[in-house]
This record gives sequence, C-alpha cells and structure tokens, in this order.
Amino acid sequence: MSIKGNIIIGQSGGPTAVINSSLAGAIEASKAAGIKKIYGMHYGIEGFLHEDIIDLRQAVKDSDDISLLRRTPSAFLGSCRYKLPKIEGNEEVYEKIFSILEKYDIQYFLYNGGNDSMDTVKMLSDYAEMHNKPQKFMGIPKTIDNDLPVTDHCPGYGSAAKYIATSLKEIMVDNDCYGPYRTSVCIIEIMGRHAGWLTAAAALGDNKPDLIYLPEVSFDPDDFIKRIKELAKTKNAIVVAVSEGIKLEDGRFVCELGSSSDKLDAFGHKQLSGVGAYLAAKVSGETGIKARAIEFSTLQRCATHVVSLTDSDEAFNVGYLAAQKAFEGNTGCMITIKVTSRAPYLVTYDQFDIHEIANVERKVPLDWIINDGTYVSEEFIKYARPLIMGELEPYYSEGVPQHLSL
Amino acid sequence: MSIKGNIIIGQSGGPTAVINSSLAGAIEASKAAGIKKIYGMHYGIEGFLHEDIIDLRQAVKDSDDISLLRRTPSAFLGSCRYKLPKIEGNEEVYEKIFSILEKYDIQYFLYNGGNDSMDTVKMLSDYAEMHNKPQKFMGIPKTIDNDLPVTDHCPGYGSAAKYIATSLKEIMVDNDCYGPYRTSVCIIEIMGRHAGWLTAAAALGDNKPDLIYLPEVSFDPDDFIKRIKELAKTKNAIVVAVSEGIKLEDGRFVCELGSSSDKLDAFGHKQLSGVGAYLAAKVSGETGIKARAIEFSTLQRCATHVVSLTDSDEAFNVGYLAAQKAFEGNTGCMITIKVTSRAPYLVTYDQFDIHEIANVERKVPLDWIINDGTYVSEEFIKYARPLIMGELEPYYSEGVPQHLSL
Repeated sequence: MSIKGNIIIGQSGGPTAVINSSLAGAIEASKAAGIKKIYGMHYGIEGFLHEDIIDLRQAVKDSDDISLLRRTPSAFLGSCRYKLPKIEGNEEVYEKIFSILEKYDIQYFLYNGGNDSMDTVKMLSDYAEMHNKPQKFMGIPKTIDNDLPVTDHCPGYGSAAKYIATSLKEIMVDNDCYGPYRTSVCIIEIMGRHAGWLTAAAALGDNKPDLIYLPEVSFDPDDFIKRIKELAKTKNAIVVAVSEGIKLEDGRFVCELGSSSDKLDAFGHKQLSGVGAYLAAKVSGETGIKARAIEFSTLQRCATHVVSLTDSDEAFNVGYLAAQKAFEGNTGCMITIKVTSRAPYLVTYDQFDIHEIANVERKVPLDWIINDGTYVSEEFIKYARPLIMGELEPYYSEGVPQHLSL
Repeated sequence: MSIKGNIIIGQSGGPTAVINSSLAGAIEASKAAGIKKIYGMHYGIEGFLHEDIIDLRQAVKDSDDISLLRRTPSAFLGSCRYKLPKIEGNEEVYEKIFSILEKYDIQYFLYNGGNDSMDTVKMLSDYAEMHNKPQKFMGIPKTIDNDLPVTDHCPGYGSAAKYIATSLKEIMVDNDCYGPYRTSVCIIEIMGRHAGWLTAAAALGDNKPDLIYLPEVSFDPDDFIKRIKELAKTKNAIVVAVSEGIKLEDGRFVCELGSSSDKLDAFGHKQLSGVGAYLAAKVSGETGIKARAIEFSTLQRCATHVVSLTDSDEAFNVGYLAAQKAFEGNTGCMITIKVTSRAPYLVTYDQFDIHEIANVERKVPLDWIINDGTYVSEEFIKYARPLIMGELEPYYSEGVPQHLSL
C-alpha cells in the first residue's frame, strides 16, 4: 500500500446521530496511514466547489476530540443537499472539482451520505475513469431511513430506531396514566417518506403500540377508524405509530387529505398538516374519542443523547474502512455491512460497486408487514434488535451534553 | 414519634420524570418508620373513591425495585385530574373518603401533585380539622411547570428543563448544518400555559436560541417578524423558543390566531394549530424564509432517559420528608425546598401551610425577562443551572430503558 498525497472527507444530506463517528473513523484511518493532510469539505461538495476546506488535523486534534466528535450531533463539517449535474454538458463543474483536488494534492475522496450522496461518488469516479484521473472515490453509507441497498443496514438507522423505541416507550407509559378514567388515542408520526424502517422501530419496546402503519402498503382510512373503535372497547390508552409517508390505495399521501384547498393558512398558503395531526382530527371527529398527535421530528436524527453503541461503532468502522480501501487503490465503491449471525450478532464489512447502489431505495420486505398492513413481524424485531444495542453515553457538562464544534 | 396505623400515597395531575422518585422516598420513609401497611392510590383520589388501592410492599419489593421505580416515567400508581368538590353541600364525598381511610386504618395521607392536588390536601385537612378526625394530610410538590409558590422550585422542573436544554442544543446544531447555503427559521414550542419557566430553560445550553418568548409578557407579532428579518441579515439558522401560552396585548392566546372560524378541519371542527405552527407559517408568509415548528410535547414530562440527578434526589427527599413530617403529627402542609446557597448549591427543606399554596401560581419574575420581552437574564441561568445538574442514568435492557410496572 503506497500512500500518495492527501485525503478529503465530506458529509452530505440529512445528518444522523452517528455521522460524525464515520468521520472519526476516516480521520483515524488517515492518521494511521500517515497521510500528511487530512481535509474536510465545509458543507459537502457544495462548499468544496467554493474551495471551502477544513484542516482536520487542526479541527480534531487528539483522542479526546475524537471521543467528543463521536458524541456530536449533526454534520460536524456541515452538510449540503447539492446534487452534481450529469457529466455530459456540465464538464466545467467536474473540471473545477478536479482542479481543486489537484491544487491540494488530494488523492482520496470520501463522501458520507445516502442515495443522493452515493450518486456524487458514482459521478466523480466515472469522470475520473473517463479522463484517466488517479484519484480514488469511496462512499460511506449513512441514513436514518435505512433505505440504501446491498448493505444489511445503514449506520444512523440503529440510533434513530433506539431514540424512537425509547421515546415511544416513555410516551406510552405516560399516556396510560389515567387508566379506566380516560380513553384517548395518541398518534405518533415518524419519519420515512418511502421506507418504513423507522416507523417499524416502534415495535422494539417491550410495551407495544396497538397499530403500526408503514408506507410500503396502502392505508385504508375507514379500516383504520374501524380498528380504533374496536380497540376502544377494551383499551383506554390507544397508541398508533404511523409513517409520515403512508399513502392511500390511489397513491396520494394521506397527509394531503389534511390540506384541501379550502384550508389556507392566515397567509393564504395551502396548509400542509402532518399525517399525525390529520389522523388525530379524524379519530376525534368520527369516534368522539380524545386524540392527539406527536411528531418526533428532527430529534430522530440528532438526538445524540440516545445513541446505539453498536450503530456508533459500525459508523466508525465504515468510515475507517472507506479510507483504508481507498488507500489500497479501490474506487467507485461504497462500504457495506454484512451480518453473518444475528445471535450472537456478528458482522463483516465489504465494498460494493457504487453503480448498483446510487439512487436505489430499499424498503421493508412486504412479508414482514403483517395483520393486514397494521403491524410488523417477529422477523423485523430479530433484524433490528441488535442494531439498537448498547449505549454511547453523552459527556455532560453544566447539565447538558457537550459537543465538538469547528 | 408514635406511629399509629397505615399510610397511603397518591399521585395526581400530569406526571413528571421524577414523580416516582417522590413515591420511592415516601415508601422508604414508611419502611424506615416501621409502618405496617403502605398503600398506594390507584389513579389518585379518583381511584381511591372507588376503593382502588395498591399494596406497595408487594408492588415495590426491594432496593432494586426502588432503583427501577426512580427510572420509571409517568405516574407508577396511575394519576387523575379529579378535583374534590367544595366541602359544603358535598359532605357525602368526604364521608366516603374518611370511611375508606378508617376501613384500612390509614392515618397518614400523602398526595403528590401541583396546584390542584394541593387543593385536595387542603380540603381533606380542613375537613379533618372540622370533624376532629385524627388523620394527617401532607402535600408533596410536583410539576414540570415550576409554578408552585413558596418553594424555591418544584421537583419535576429540573428534569424537564434538562430535557429541553439537551434536545434544543441538539436541534440547534442540526439546524445549522447547511451553513451559508440555506436560511431557515425553526420555532420550538415549549409547554407552559401561564408560566414561562420551561421555555426559559431554552437558555441553558451553551449554544443559545435567538429569541425566547414567555407568557409572562405580551407578544407583538409585528415586532417578532421585524426581529426575524433583522436576524436573517447576518444569520442562516435562526432558532426561536416560544411558550405555548404566549398572549397578545389584548389577552388572546397567539395560538388562537391560527384557528379562525374559516379554518375547519375535514370533520367540521375548528382547527387549533399550535403557536409554533402558526408562527412558522407567519414567518414563511411574511418573509419568504423557510420556517418550521417543532413541538417537544409530552416528552418534556416523561423523558426519563434525560433526568437531572439533582431533581431526582430532591424529589426523593420531599417524598421522604412528607411521610416523616406526617408521622411527627403534622398536617395540612406541603414540603418546600429552600436554596441556602446557589454556588455551591445547598438546600434545606421545610413545610408550609397548604392554604398559602393551593391554587396560587408563581411566574417568572418580570425583571428576569429582558430585551423587550425576547430573552431571559443571567439571574434565571443562575437560578436554573443547579437544578439540571447530574444525570440519573437509565437501566437499558434489549436496547431500551427498563421501567417498573404494577
């Protein structure tokens, strides 16, 4: 393995609670390999195009900084939602990128993100191949949505699932505190526009919600109300977990039903209420039962106060391995996780052609969705349980968790 | 101190993350005093009226159970929102309560709650005095709202404040991840209908929100928009913490503005959007800046995965002392916390006449609200900081926190 030149690492797309563990892994691998300059892209490829570059040996000095980095939410380097244009007809963008790479003698380019970010790795490695450029481009998987193909699961998912299972468990106990003296329905809206992995995590607590609706199967509002009425005959505190992306049989998002054109907000805009708020209003309106909605919102991806240690370690490893594989001369690949045994939980890592990964979405298998589309099976629990195991405890100071910042 | 008969403990009102620590304290004091039967009210005074009574020596067996109880959210015994009717004309309700007390030889009655629950303690101790009944009635303070008078602060507040400060800090870092490439406004809606203690906790992180609005002072929507526009000239990620209970100068709740009569939901009901959603729509509509709202919702009171150890210990102590004071023959009082020094943080406990406490609300001092009603002062920080210090770590099993249940 002969190392030439420098490395740069970028973070892209919506952050996860462990995206910075992958950065920590890539930094540690680069230090171990004796790379001279370890650069970070400030705000991903978008910032890189403005030559906004960070010296990571300065920004992350020692092992204390690495530990704190692993406990820092959001993208430490800053992120972006910038998608590279197709190569043909946009050569000037690529020429600019490669001229900056050459200017800083960057031979290794790691990009940490989801489907769109893997597309960036694909385009750059394709361009390098077309033009005989020596730089190596590797993808580091990341997404709370868990929708990247090939890899068994994505770093970021385990911690989001742990946050959801933990918070839902607490809300369910709270919700039940008035016992037989009050009947109520609580709708928990969970992220996931197309894939139901996050919503399925609602089944990971030891107290279970009554209904779980994923976007993989179509949602029947009338059947939903029928089930609520049936549940209310024997239960007082009914809890429903629902993906933000559930759709009707005709393909419309359920949340669109809550935003008919006659519902303009005070500023004349069509109001998009969430699916949770819509369903809570529907339950109250059609059953008379008190109902409310809770949205877990951004905390699903940034609550570093509840991080799965398994997830954090795997995130670190994929970052480390992406760098190592690049140093070995590999390019145009993403690191993948292969689970060789679920009990005991054992994994190996590999790399896979980025062309098979970029822009492909992986959904929850349909045979894991049971009870006429209202629950998830034991197969899902067996799949997801190991991913939420262990805790990376925050470092508290002055009563709040501490983070590393640039 | 001569102990006669048995004790009963009840939990009432909205739970807190440490209400069960107070229960643990009362149980431990009762065991230490050698009380034969330690009873719990199943669903507060409402369940008690149905003679729904729990044997707490069975339900909380040993020190392991006590440790787990302190890490359990919601009201372990179940709670209620039942307010006793006034004594005059409703003697039969009181006769029923005292007949049940006599049936179980209950001499000590502890009730853990906020303003309404202290009213229950007041009525029962008044009735006992009027009718020469021997039973002792003591109040244990509890409320995330921190609005009980006399006591320096209320158990439950510190943990809710720690959850808010922690989650807000994470959301703020997340919100800032696109840097100069995206301007956005994030409105965080925090509990507190009349008192701003919880919203003020938004100032406890080391990264601060830009604006903090409490219900103690009136809210000017035009000035708010002006400030947002001004902030947007120099900042990309603007964060505003707002109490659900902020009001206009004319006394109307700001959230009412988002629910004009022409905005009916799909079921013909007047739609009450939260103040956060309303303000986010207002910002988008009037400035063109992307804005969204996040509601911390129920997790503010039930997130036992972020508990202040200081708060949990104080909750335990007020529970313990309420029992001890009752055994000493005191009645018609609530335990209070007196802070004798804020640095180092030192407290003593006392008891105070329940008549001065029941139904009285304590708000944030007006001179702690600064910058024309858009921020809180350093005095607040000094007041609240010690209350969020220390962590009571959850016990995780199978990847999620474990709780004790009946």
